[in-house]
Amino acid sequence: MSATATASPAAVELDTNVRDKLLKVGSANVANVLLARGFRNVMMLGLAPLAQDQPQLVGPAYTLRFIPAREDLDSMANYGRTDNKHRRAIEECPPGAVLVIDAFGSLQASSMGDMMAARLRHRGVSGVVTDGGYRDSAAIEATGLPCYQVRNAPPATPIALHPVALDEPVGCAGVAVYPGDVLVGDRDGVVVIPRHLVEEVADEALDAVEYEDFAALHIANGRSIFGLFPATPESRAEYDEWVAAGRPELEKK
Amino acid sequence: MSATATASPAAVELDTNVRDKLLKVGSANVANVLLARGFRNVMMLGLAPLAQDQPQLVGPAYTLRFIPAREDLDSMANYGRTDNKHRRAIEECPPGAVLVIDAFGSLQASSMGDMMAARLRHRGVSGVVTDGGYRDSAAIEATGLPCYQVRNAPPATPIALHPVALDEPVGCAGVAVYPGDVLVGDRDGVVVIPRHLVEEVADEALDAVEYEDFAALHIANGRSIFGLFPATPESRAEYDEWVAAGRPELEKK
Amino acid sequence: MSATATASPAAVELDTNVRDKLLKVGSANVANVLLARGFRNVMMLGLAPLAQDQPQLVGPAYTLRFIPAREDLDSMANYGRTDNKHRRAIEECPPGAVLVIDAFGSLQASSMGDMMAARLRHRGVSGVVTDGGYRDSAAIEATGLPCYQVRNAPPATPIALHPVALDEPVGCAGVAVYPGDVLVGDRDGVVVIPRHLVEEVADEALDAVEYEDFAALHIANGRSIFGLFPATPESRAEYDEWVAAGRPELEKK
Amino acid sequence: MSATATASPAAVELDTNVRDKLLKVGSANVANVLLARGFRNVMMLGLAPLAQDQPQLVGPAYTLRFIPAREDLDSMANYGRTDNKHRRAIEECPPGAVLVIDAFGSLQASSMGDMMAARLRHRGVSGVVTDGGYRDSAAIEATGLPCYQVRNAPPATPIALHPVALDEPVGCAGVAVYPGDVLVGDRDGVVVIPRHLVEEVADEALDAVEYEDFAALHIANGRSIFGLFPATPESRAEYDEWVAAGRPELEKK
Amino acid sequence: MSATATASPAAVELDTNVRDKLLKVGSANVANVLLARGFRNVMMLGLAPLAQDQPQLVGPAYTLRFIPAREDLDSMANYGRTDNKHRRAIEECPPGAVLVIDAFGSLQASSMGDMMAARLRHRGVSGVVTDGGYRDSAAIEATGLPCYQVRNAPPATPIALHPVALDEPVGCAGVAVYPGDVLVGDRDGVVVIPRHLVEEVADEALDAVEYEDFAALHIANGRSIFGLFPATPESRAEYDEWVAAGRPELEKK
Amino acid sequence: MSATATASPAAVELDTNVRDKLLKVGSANVANVLLARGFRNVMMLGLAPLAQDQPQLVGPAYTLRFIPAREDLDSMANYGRTDNKHRRAIEECPPGAVLVIDAFGSLQASSMGDMMAARLRHRGVSGVVTDGGYRDSAAIEATGLPCYQVRNAPPATPIALHPVALDEPVGCAGVAVYPGDVLVGDRDGVVVIPRHLVEEVADEALDAVEYEDFAALHIANGRSIFGLFPATPESRAEYDEWVAAGRPELEKK
Repeated sequence: MSATATASPAAVELDTNVRDKLLKVGSANVANVLLARGFRNVMMLGLAPLAQDQPQLVGPAYTLRFIPAREDLDSMANYGRTDNKHRRAIEECPPGAVLVIDAFGSLQASSMGDMMAARLRHRGVSGVVTDGGYRDSAAIEATGLPCYQVRNAPPATPIALHPVALDEPVGCAGVAVYPGDVLVGDRDGVVVIPRHLVEEVADEALDAVEYEDFAALHIANGRSIFGLFPATPESRAEYDEWVAAGRPELEKK
Repeated sequence: MSATATASPAAVELDTNVRDKLLKVGSANVANVLLARGFRNVMMLGLAPLAQDQPQLVGPAYTLRFIPAREDLDSMANYGRTDNKHRRAIEECPPGAVLVIDAFGSLQASSMGDMMAARLRHRGVSGVVTDGGYRDSAAIEATGLPCYQVRNAPPATPIALHPVALDEPVGCAGVAVYPGDVLVGDRDGVVVIPRHLVEEVADEALDAVEYEDFAALHIANGRSIFGLFPATPESRAEYDEWVAAGRPELEKK
Repeated sequence: MSATATASPAAVELDTNVRDKLLKVGSANVANVLLARGFRNVMMLGLAPLAQDQPQLVGPAYTLRFIPAREDLDSMANYGRTDNKHRRAIEECPPGAVLVIDAFGSLQASSMGDMMAARLRHRGVSGVVTDGGYRDSAAIEATGLPCYQVRNAPPATPIALHPVALDEPVGCAGVAVYPGDVLVGDRDGVVVIPRHLVEEVADEALDAVEYEDFAALHIANGRSIFGLFPATPESRAEYDEWVAAGRPELEKK
Repeated sequence: MSATATASPAAVELDTNVRDKLLKVGSANVANVLLARGFRNVMMLGLAPLAQDQPQLVGPAYTLRFIPAREDLDSMANYGRTDNKHRRAIEECPPGAVLVIDAFGSLQASSMGDMMAARLRHRGVSGVVTDGGYRDSAAIEATGLPCYQVRNAPPATPIALHPVALDEPVGCAGVAVYPGDVLVGDRDGVVVIPRHLVEEVADEALDAVEYEDFAALHIANGRSIFGLFPATPESRAEYDEWVAAGRPELEKK
Repeated sequence: MSATATASPAAVELDTNVRDKLLKVGSANVANVLLARGFRNVMMLGLAPLAQDQPQLVGPAYTLRFIPAREDLDSMANYGRTDNKHRRAIEECPPGAVLVIDAFGSLQASSMGDMMAARLRHRGVSGVVTDGGYRDSAAIEATGLPCYQVRNAPPATPIALHPVALDEPVGCAGVAVYPGDVLVGDRDGVVVIPRHLVEEVADEALDAVEYEDFAALHIANGRSIFGLFPATPESRAEYDEWVAAGRPELEKK
Repeated sequence: MSATATASPAAVELDTNVRDKLLKVGSANVANVLLARGFRNVMMLGLAPLAQDQPQLVGPAYTLRFIPAREDLDSMANYGRTDNKHRRAIEECPPGAVLVIDAFGSLQASSMGDMMAARLRHRGVSGVVTDGGYRDSAAIEATGLPCYQVRNAPPATPIALHPVALDEPVGCAGVAVYPGDVLVGDRDGVVVIPRHLVEEVADEALDAVEYEDFAALHIANGRSIFGLFPATPESRAEYDEWVAAGRPELEKK
């Protein structure tokens, strides 16, 4: 384990219980909970899952920062060196963590290829997020690793990207990511939870999901969204009663 | 039924016969028919279906116009009010109509979420089109409602969007939409038919589709597109004969 | 066969052996081989396959160049003429070749529709690439022809595009394409191989793919990418030994 | 005077005293004052003054909303009609007001030309803001009317723009504009003040400008920005003293 | 004189009388005249004059087409060869003509530098238009040659641009340009007149300018634009009378 | 002087002789010299000088890196703290250096305002470069400090930008900037010279400028650019002779 990773232990730990909750909520639910606390800019915009049916992404952030490449520093020879931080990120990103790549939005070269994805998968990393793109996208998809990108960016990394730092605060797709912040990704995209808020956000987001299950039943039964969604004090009381009653089936209307 | 909806009855009626024809034609066929009448700007550009296999979208437009949000007016509290026009649109869009959302191209916040989509589906609305994007996209897709957007835009609506008017003329994805204009959406995207032309456009577009079936048979049989597609007077006569003959199988070449 | 096509015989011939090799390699492998020869700008950026599961695209380029339309020249009537170069391209693109369309990035009108795609398919053309977009995308996909575009662009061609030249050097999606250059397209996108390098590039790219199969086995077995990928002289020797030994299964770790 | 204008008298009145204050402050000063009240999205982004040296823009908003043109409605003949709302806006925008044009960001056609600008100038209108662009820019500049746009957009208006409504809430360059809101424009761009806050914002912004004059003197004298800018309670006290002392020259360091 | 230039004599001749008229009209006037003939797409969008106060641009088009560069063909050594078409364009563009550069919108490298501009100026070329950008912009401006571009693009040409053809039909900034078409550029931008229409367009545009002078006097005198601009049959008759009367001063209102 | 600045003394020293040379050359000359050494990506693209007539920018880079703001960290209160790195950059950027701001291309908030510019000017800083934009642009221009930006971005910094690091390698407008690299900015834009190459690049660029003076005289005298520009061995010998002869006036042709 590298010194860098050791220095930010926050990145490696996410309570199993919290992770389980976050596996059940949508990124939009999380964003709502954060908005209620005044956080308006938490959804990475413009990113798409690599595969439509990839698993939910949950994990604390471990970051890699790229800057533009320079021809004398970013040769293929230098790329193969063992101190190359792009390659170190693949070996040092902690199991369970999400590798978050600040590619400064560059689609000129690849943020990751299939060999790297296979290695991350083997090492137990939870997923990868870049504001650039990947190469070998079909093979990455085959690994089952949940990955997010803007669009494919197949040229070789050193053509445009120089890896300059590991596990420091970065921006990714317009959102601040501090090491250890927790990312949740679904079909909609990826949301970032400030690390000190993860537990309470997970609780509230799960609660919102459960309320939405209740609301969905009523909507399927023909009820208006007024007085139901968003929740009102009255509908909330009704929900609590329904939960207390063991979540019975609704009488068909 | 709200006064607003009552005021534009055009929005609610689309002859079943016409609807059936439009369910069989492509948006590109419709665009061609309109081009022949001098309409060059009828395809909404840059919109994609939410799901690859969603049903064909057909229906008259009922519109919702957003403007940028302002923090004092667009709180979550105000969002929950019963006079919020975003929520009213969900309850007032007539069954059979298409909800057309002018989000002024904003991808900063959501034009609709899954609870709203479920309610629209239940109410018999034909589909939704926005020049922004949605949240809860997987759940919206699960409703089966045909929806079009630029890309996912999961942040909460009041972060960036203020609903300001219902059922008035709007622009959406670069095309003028007047209440009651008829939208047709397929894999290619969405085309807008001025309401006074719907019947004749449906007829001509269906005719074009049937001619294309004829042309496709010949192309599969090895015939050149010259003298066949686009149709010439001669190929058209040949087609009429073939139709008169009961659309027989072609002799294999 | 037209004089134009005759004048560039390079476009019609691609050694079967070379084609077979290129059917097995990724566009990113090809790009790497070209980078080693100093070619940095060979991947068309921003293009996507029309269908996720379409076959690999391989073939020499036959080009069509569009310029912006002008109303007096680009009427629907003129579009139907037999000297229209868009339609001529469909009939004259040699079997086995790839039709490469320089639409100057325009998404205002269609680079191709389904009738044209069906004809190309019937004529044995290998695929189509445009830096614009198509109409009738679902029907094109049904032909099985591998096609690349930016996104759907369904308006009728003459609204925005005038076909001005066949089989001359063009730019497409930011890459130079000379007639006879060989294109390889997969899920990542499309790469262009200068025609005089095709054989050696095919050999080296296939070699890289085979080395990656070896590396993938080791990664699946828990080995670090350091000293394995990219290849080092030592790992390369190890690979050669493994090949000589008949590519045996790895001992499980 | 039209009924429309009569219905929104807020648009026509701006206290002379308030106007004078706003003529002395920067748009950035105003934005800061609004930020302190929780308004984060008040600066129109991406707009530039037509002329570098045009006068400061100050005035309440009178709005014009465009939607995309449609060939049958937006002929040159219809453009010349007296009920054309684009032309009505030129005659009905109240003296002293700013004509704010929501062109939905379209640069395909002109939001205004020189004849219209000359008429607005003659009628005493304070200026024009569009999120599209103008034609005849040199001649508009010659009128001296302060105008903002994205960039020149010289094609004739009916090619792309249909005027659909006057003096209703619109979005312009990403900011909500309600009739009567007050706009302030300088070299930086244009800021929008919600109408109910105009007086207090003018006061505070002018106060900020006066404090900045004080800070500028100290900076010119070699003082650090720490403890000076942004103001601290201590520096603020020092400023008050200095003002009380009649704003004496600083002792040279 | 090169064979290429000889082959398109249309490029070199523009009647002095016609040129003089076009020196007096705005690009927007020309666009209006062309719109009346059905030409909607004649203004190059997004181009700006290099210098605010450069002279009016008028002249027939001589074109240069670039495609993306390729490292083996576009070395600095090859750039210096006498058959390089970029350099040939500088020596062969006919005096009086406008060099129109199709740089496929690339801002990655320079369409022209100051030495080239000085040579063109010396040779009597009327100006330069590119849909890319220039280097040495201050020095180009000093030559007095009217030039249009998107924005500065200072990297050396061979980094991104390969000159592939002279004096053939091209697209530039979204508009078709055929050799010999006449360009008119002012502060607003550049308009393209199909060559067979130049004389009548010049006449009508000049007429429109003269009518606008009349309208401007009335507007300055307080008259409404209704019934004055655009012209009506009545205002047109009034104008004719005024002209017949020797364009007298208006009575002050 | 802060520890950070002390740690990168390269940032503060630029030989006066080298600086003087670089004050005389164009950014394009520098880019050419670097291209000859294999550096293709050295010009910051899309940046413009704040003022047309600002002095040449020359100096070693001192960097500030922003990431996206987060509401709890980027309050106005926190902005005023003495450990805020944005404000520290203003006080710690060494005299003679250029402050290079990596704003990750954000135009949502200001990279600098007039008070900061005045302080930098007073402290002897050479200029400022951002890939975002400024507020108070007129007042910044009045300081005379050469500044580059994309376009004005007047909202308050903490709305979108969080200052995260000083004097580390960053990307700015697509170019890698290492502390101590030397920037040269003119009307065209800004070029970055790797610090170990500054002396030789300055020499060669100045030589190129002097050769261009020679070429310009010949071009003004009617000579073709062939055999003159770019220089050939023969023209170079001719130039050397001319220099040896004391750069005499050319005989008029």
